[in-house]
Amino acid sequence: MKVEQDLHMSRGDGETSYAANSRLQEKAILKTRPLLHKAIEEVHASLSLSSPGKMVVADLGCSSGPNTLLVISEVLGVVANHCEQSLADVQFFLNDLPGNDFNLIFQSLELFKKLTTKELGEALPPYYIVGLPGSFYTRLFPDRSVHLFHSSYCLMWRSKVPDELARGAVVNAGNMYIWETTPPSVVELYQKQFQEDFSLFLAMRHSELVSGGQMVLTFLGRKNRDVLRGELSYMWGLLAQALQSLVQEGRVEKEKLDTFNLPFYSPSVDEVKVLVRQSELFDINHIKLFESNWDPHDDTDDDVTLDSVWSGVNVAKSIRAVLEPLIARHFGKCIVDDLFDMCAHNVAKHLEQVKTKYPVIVLSLKARR
Amino acid sequence: MKVEQDLHMSRGDGETSYAANSRLQEKAILKTRPLLHKAIEEVHASLSLSSPGKMVVADLGCSSGPNTLLVISEVLGVVANHCEQSLADVQFFLNDLPGNDFNLIFQSLELFKKLTTKELGEALPPYYIVGLPGSFYTRLFPDRSVHLFHSSYCLMWRSKVPDELARGAVVNAGNMYIWETTPPSVVELYQKQFQEDFSLFLAMRHSELVSGGQMVLTFLGRKNRDVLRGELSYMWGLLAQALQSLVQEGRVEKEKLDTFNLPFYSPSVDEVKVLVRQSELFDINHIKLFESNWDPHDDTDDDVTLDSVWSGVNVAKSIRAVLEPLIARHFGKCIVDDLFDMCAHNVAKHLEQVKTKYPVIVLSLKARR
Repeated sequence: MKVEQDLHMSRGDGETSYAANSRLQEKAILKTRPLLHKAIEEVHASLSLSSPGKMVVADLGCSSGPNTLLVISEVLGVVANHCEQSLADVQFFLNDLPGNDFNLIFQSLELFKKLTTKELGEALPPYYIVGLPGSFYTRLFPDRSVHLFHSSYCLMWRSKVPDELARGAVVNAGNMYIWETTPPSVVELYQKQFQEDFSLFLAMRHSELVSGGQMVLTFLGRKNRDVLRGELSYMWGLLAQALQSLVQEGRVEKEKLDTFNLPFYSPSVDEVKVLVRQSELFDINHIKLFESNWDPHDDTDDDVTLDSVWSGVNVAKSIRAVLEPLIARHFGKCIVDDLFDMCAHNVAKHLEQVKTKYPVIVLSLKARR
Repeated sequence: MKVEQDLHMSRGDGETSYAANSRLQEKAILKTRPLLHKAIEEVHASLSLSSPGKMVVADLGCSSGPNTLLVISEVLGVVANHCEQSLADVQFFLNDLPGNDFNLIFQSLELFKKLTTKELGEALPPYYIVGLPGSFYTRLFPDRSVHLFHSSYCLMWRSKVPDELARGAVVNAGNMYIWETTPPSVVELYQKQFQEDFSLFLAMRHSELVSGGQMVLTFLGRKNRDVLRGELSYMWGLLAQALQSLVQEGRVEKEKLDTFNLPFYSPSVDEVKVLVRQSELFDINHIKLFESNWDPHDDTDDDVTLDSVWSGVNVAKSIRAVLEPLIARHFGKCIVDDLFDMCAHNVAKHLEQVKTKYPVIVLSLKARR
């Protein structure tokens, strides 16, 4: 698996595309709005004092779909309506891995510009949008050239599957992520990969931020103290179960499943705090964990799933939109439809027993100088 | 016709794609190398004196294919090998209309990075590549944020078909561009559109350039004094003839042809000089016209075409790579193959009589402050 090539949301805007199945991520952006607004206002204020001119905002892991533009629209809205002197042009850098459907974003900009002009009128600051392909675990910008980084639902993805796991030196048979049966050596590898990636991310972004620059980061985390029983472990476990069924049916080779490992780790709030403090590069403005129903279309606060079959289908769709390219690459396209049907079924059964939720960590950081 | 949507090189990298049929444009880049190198060195030198840090280079109308990366590679080579102190990171903005195949470019960057690292080794400066969708007849950058603009084979394209022509108030029956039978009122509209576009281009780029910023612009021009008999008029005339044949065969409606007008104008060197001087925004470092054989694969200096049938096919392919999206949009996809077969035939007949060449204007400008 080559993460930089194979990890990208499902392209286009068809039924199974990410663009059509990204309500979960949309809800997170709306939920973290106040934090984003505050960061924009502060960054803009510090800008007016020193060098008016331009504010550079980068969205890391922008994907392709309505959420990509939602973030831009939030930023423009704040600059237009809440920043006292709107002296600055805003330059947006939309970043994602090179496999992302940038063409789709670019072709939707004309309509976006019309809507934004209509909505914000005279207050709309001049703005410019560019696409920046590349992993955010590499340098993306020259030194001190960015004012604000935003990233939503991305930082739980690792730069790669841990080496020892990728080359089969240790195994996590039947699983694709940490699960109850995962040996401690494998858990450690996942954690080490997270620590390396996240520390690298902090260091690189710090170099790229101007003095007083900020970051608002939202990503999937873990609420359960037991790393073997994290909420995401359940999710990936149910997908692994579906793959195990396909192994039993002889449609997927056992070895294929055993060698499939997600480049993923969802940390606890404490694990994140430790790394930020160790880096000595950022002050934490805010860190919190909130919960979001597995089913993107379930907006209730209930502890019971009303229609678990329907929810199962919704959950499977939202996972498919994210994982299909990776799955199709490793297992072949032909199993994809059946796999996610089975996954929907497994999720439904699980939700009947217990309504599990995604723990989402939201983190706001200010660069130290 | 909506130029911003419909004017883009043929996508992908298949047989009829622009990526596979852009040798003409490649030759122009290689030909104008010395001028580009000089501009890079000068811009880089002025940078080291004032603020080391980053050099922003924008390629306007970058298209998608090997030429896109060739320009970047030229710039990196000069900074690596010829600039005394390579203190600056280079940030590239690849600009084209939103219909351009940016995904194709982005997916070729990994290989490009490997090759560049191998070629330039230690001397390679840190660099970053982004895609910037939008018309260069609109603002693309915040004020004073670009050091060098490059554009090759693009500025002969207009921002739109002149209004009166587009709405049918005047007609240029049977033609798609200025031709021997074109009425003076229509010629005037094309010229006015060029003057407006080019002046706007100069003004906007001037605002976007830093002090001491430069532009190296290459585009199709006209050598013949008579605007009705420009070299490009012959080229588009031969394509129009092929369309006329399809009208006679009943496969294209006459009205469709009469309402098809190219958003194009190839000016003389004098017409360009006048506008630059009128703008009072730039000093002309260099302006010249060179000639390039119609057939991209004919590298001879002869005045006779060796194999006019072969050359006809090559010429038709190179035009198709540029015009197919526009033609398919207006006339439908089904005529495209036959149209360019006919066009190849017409070009072959023409080249048997006289070996016509493209006049290419190359212009190097330095921003005044």
